[in-house]
Amino acid sequence: MTVTDELLEANARYAETFDGPLPLPPARHVAVLACMDARLDVYRALGLAEGDAHVIRNAGGVVTADEIRSLAISQRLLGTTEIVLVHHTDCGMLTFGDEDFRSGIEAEVGQRPEWHSEAFADLEDDVRASRRRILDSPYIPIKDSVRGFVFDVATGRLSEVA
Amino acid sequence: MTVTDELLEANARYAETFDGPLPLPPARHVAVLACMDARLDVYRALGLAEGDAHVIRNAGGVVTADEIRSLAISQRLLGTTEIVLVHHTDCGMLTFGDEDFRSGIEAEVGQRPEWHSEAFADLEDDVRASRRRILDSPYIPIKDSVRGFVFDVATGRLSEVA
Repeated sequence: MTVTDELLEANARYAETFDGPLPLPPARHVAVLACMDARLDVYRALGLAEGDAHVIRNAGGVVTADEIRSLAISQRLLGTTEIVLVHHTDCGMLTFGDEDFRSGIEAEVGQRPEWHSEAFADLEDDVRASRRRILDSPYIPIKDSVRGFVFDVATGRLSEVA
Repeated sequence: MTVTDELLEANARYAETFDGPLPLPPARHVAVLACMDARLDVYRALGLAEGDAHVIRNAGGVVTADEIRSLAISQRLLGTTEIVLVHHTDCGMLTFGDEDFRSGIEAEVGQRPEWHSEAFADLEDDVRASRRRILDSPYIPIKDSVRGFVFDVATGRLSEVA
């Protein structure tokens, strides 16, 4: 039995008490963009219930074209108006360099990734850079509340990045 | 007070009973790639605890270069070995066309997005296409368990896509 099979068993138990469907547009009009890190349960860490907020996640919680796509769909089609960015302490993205990562893949599989790893050297600087990419995008219409945070994996607490 | 401020208050309560830090690599060696839809609480729907699995999310739960990036980092640097793909019923991505979406943005802001919306017309077909993109990628080393599912927002239940 794989872990995926175990997750399916857990899902069957979840469905026993599930009460749906809720409406499609997020009830609290927020989109959260966070790192994929396993230790960050976005719903519980931010007090979200099912139906409350869009949750976008990737390695680092960075902003590339694909996150602009998701945020544009979130705001333009589904009515969200606030954006919450979450990076976190002890992030894997602080532990390697882009050149080494891509060269390592190229050496192994004979093909160099057309994308960058988005690894970063400073957590708060990358939160600021991510926020800046959103503010600079012509495709995101509502920018009144675009705030960036660092989640501390030791304490569970968010700190805002100025 | 914004909704973001309310989320920060909820986070302060969460941190009161938080017990960290956990290790960086996901304990159950799984990466989940799911839609950003607000109604899908990945941790609860799959029985995941903090620290268990990487969670990657975007509009549609699709696979673009950025998801290949996140999955490559997840497997190569942080030891995950299974991939779980989750789309869901009543998805916003079924309700619009790529050409209309991008033309509408261009008409409004005078610039055409360099990315596609990734809107799709058939849920199960897009799960299969997403799975295929992972299987075809040279940058994802472990493909023994790459399984695709549809989450039913009415029942909370996952169905596997053959």
